[in-house]
Amino acid sequence: MRFSNRIMAMQSSPIRRLIPYADEAKAKGKKVYHLNIGQPDIKTPPSFLQAIKDFAQEVIAYSTSQGSNELRDAMRRYYEGYDIHFERDHILVTNGGSEAIMFAVMATCDPGEEILIPEPFYANYNAFSKCVNVNIVPITTKAEEGFHLPPSEKIEAVITPKTRCILISNPGNPTGTIYTADEMRMLADLAKKHDLYIIADEVYREFVYDGLKYTSFGNLSDVEDRVIIIDSVSKRYSACGARIGCVASKNEELMKQILKLCQGRLCVPTLEQVGATALYNTPVSYLEEVNKEYQSRRDTLYKALQSMPGVVCEQPKGAFYVVVKMPVDDAEKFVIWMLQNFDINGETMMAAPAEGFYATPGLGKNEARLAYVLKNEDLVKAMDILKAALKAYPGRVEPVSAQ
Amino acid sequence: MRFSNRIMAMQSSPIRRLIPYADEAKAKGKKVYHLNIGQPDIKTPPSFLQAIKDFAQEVIAYSTSQGSNELRDAMRRYYEGYDIHFERDHILVTNGGSEAIMFAVMATCDPGEEILIPEPFYANYNAFSKCVNVNIVPITTKAEEGFHLPPSEKIEAVITPKTRCILISNPGNPTGTIYTADEMRMLADLAKKHDLYIIADEVYREFVYDGLKYTSFGNLSDVEDRVIIIDSVSKRYSACGARIGCVASKNEELMKQILKLCQGRLCVPTLEQVGATALYNTPVSYLEEVNKEYQSRRDTLYKALQSMPGVVCEQPKGAFYVVVKMPVDDAEKFVIWMLQNFDINGETMMAAPAEGFYATPGLGKNEARLAYVLKNEDLVKAMDILKAALKAYPGRVEPVSAQ
Repeated sequence: MRFSNRIMAMQSSPIRRLIPYADEAKAKGKKVYHLNIGQPDIKTPPSFLQAIKDFAQEVIAYSTSQGSNELRDAMRRYYEGYDIHFERDHILVTNGGSEAIMFAVMATCDPGEEILIPEPFYANYNAFSKCVNVNIVPITTKAEEGFHLPPSEKIEAVITPKTRCILISNPGNPTGTIYTADEMRMLADLAKKHDLYIIADEVYREFVYDGLKYTSFGNLSDVEDRVIIIDSVSKRYSACGARIGCVASKNEELMKQILKLCQGRLCVPTLEQVGATALYNTPVSYLEEVNKEYQSRRDTLYKALQSMPGVVCEQPKGAFYVVVKMPVDDAEKFVIWMLQNFDINGETMMAAPAEGFYATPGLGKNEARLAYVLKNEDLVKAMDILKAALKAYPGRVEPVSAQ
Repeated sequence: MRFSNRIMAMQSSPIRRLIPYADEAKAKGKKVYHLNIGQPDIKTPPSFLQAIKDFAQEVIAYSTSQGSNELRDAMRRYYEGYDIHFERDHILVTNGGSEAIMFAVMATCDPGEEILIPEPFYANYNAFSKCVNVNIVPITTKAEEGFHLPPSEKIEAVITPKTRCILISNPGNPTGTIYTADEMRMLADLAKKHDLYIIADEVYREFVYDGLKYTSFGNLSDVEDRVIIIDSVSKRYSACGARIGCVASKNEELMKQILKLCQGRLCVPTLEQVGATALYNTPVSYLEEVNKEYQSRRDTLYKALQSMPGVVCEQPKGAFYVVVKMPVDDAEKFVIWMLQNFDINGETMMAAPAEGFYATPGLGKNEARLAYVLKNEDLVKAMDILKAALKAYPGRVEPVSAQ
């Protein structure tokens, strides 16, 4: 039987599709350090489970489609801490950041229309776009430039009458890049000039290092009617499995439109909202501690990467990822080769090949994303394995070709 | 700023959009019996919360995109009890039946293609179709005929080269109708003849009364490659707020395609899956007790409706809904009038106007859906209110016009 063209156009997750090779390695008794997926080892604040354990209603009933008032108010207070002033109805609770992006795309784009996204980008942006027939137009950024944006003219050159939105992840997944105030301003000005929405995926908002000042698109008041914030508890509170996020905007008419999508799927799980409300009431000191821990991991990772001949990467400044260019013929082959053929004392590591994070064919073939979601001593071991594997890999190529 | 055409084409939920009138009535101190929404008052089996309370992991981590093996195996065993023999990978866990339907539609239909659905139908089918640019083509059924299907020729007359699926809810929401074995056969034969998928929304599978034999589309082996089962714990275990459902099919290639959609949104909440696994292990006696309770409520409701002059409805045989034709000018006006102007001793009731359950313009204007989700003594009071309100309503029309 025939399937839809839209689903045939979708790829399997580049992050998840190599997992069978890791499973095979484990079946042979090898330990695998997973730097391929953004699943942190940080403990979820116990208040999450405690709030759920305290839930005393005998019927697990529907919540409202908007999300519970308690959770939306807790989110509202959280944003106040970032000088972003939302009303309750500016916020709609979603099934993770994933659903929030999906809703933002559906509310703003019709089939055949276009979203600009700096590449490399979070691979699932492909999934959310293709399944609703929206086309991604990439703005290419480079490892050598720390994945910062090209000048305005270069972005303007790819804007067409079909362009509806700019979607950015800041701090960047998979790049770890923090956009400068100038880059933010440039995007805001382009959005105004070409009447575009800005979908701002800021789920890593707390993960900014070296005392850098972080600016949210929620802070740029001259574009507040065109900014759509995407958020999630997944990384912030190490609660990836809670699947609680939100879509937020001061454009009230837009939020009324998105509410129709929320009503269609009825509501987000009742208990997860109870737990997430507790998470948003977690003391800021928790987030500060987590930030310190990740900055230390970032240092461990970056130091190790600098010691690897032929590896190109700028120091990542945020999130908990970095995209590295490696002296290999093909990063996917290399990752599979490591899982199948390489170990140190029975231990190996896994990275995510980066080709799936690019929309431009051929880009990212010798790049991989590393997630520093493991504790320092594990990261040290994983980096030792990577360094030795790069030396031993039969498909090693010198020098790294400039792309 | 402009919104997408697809979202502008969507309606607010006809079930949820009148809620402000109910809130207003409550603010005036009135009690409102809610027969407008399928939120049962039945207790969720305590095993749900208990399993979650026993969850001992310190990190609330992602689950797999497919859903946990434990839950899929529990679902598999549940289907065995209905003589439906799935493998684990025939089942993908979803965010409620809602996401399951959305995924089934996206995997089978491209923009501009068509789904046949008997009307009146669950209003959110509109939401799931319109937001992905798929058109619903209604097969009209009538209150006077107990909402049973028209003959095959009538259905065949609306099949076009763009038709991709038949979507049916059985037991029926909002009609309470159970399709006969002959009707099932007719749909299966049409699906084979015209190479269509059958999306079988069977979330009310246990809600079949009068000892009627229920046949699932999962039992028709000659169409097993084209049947997609939609399921949910919401009604079965009175766990609407858990938002756990599944999409299941023996068409393995189709399931591989749908898995790409599952990967895009990463996973369904980890804790809700733990709870739902416990629900699927609930003894069958629970479901039998619930069935008895609903059959008794059905009897209460139907008996009361028969005593109301000018009201047309056949005895509903399943689910916990009925669509009634009423001697009123406009059911929505009538529902609002009841909330604003009518009560007995400070108590009033709320129904869902049925026009939003039809795709054909003008149909259902004098109909409403009643959900018998309240205990018998409350139903008796709600029906007394409805009966008296129909007599007192200034917009009463006699006789009911045949549509």
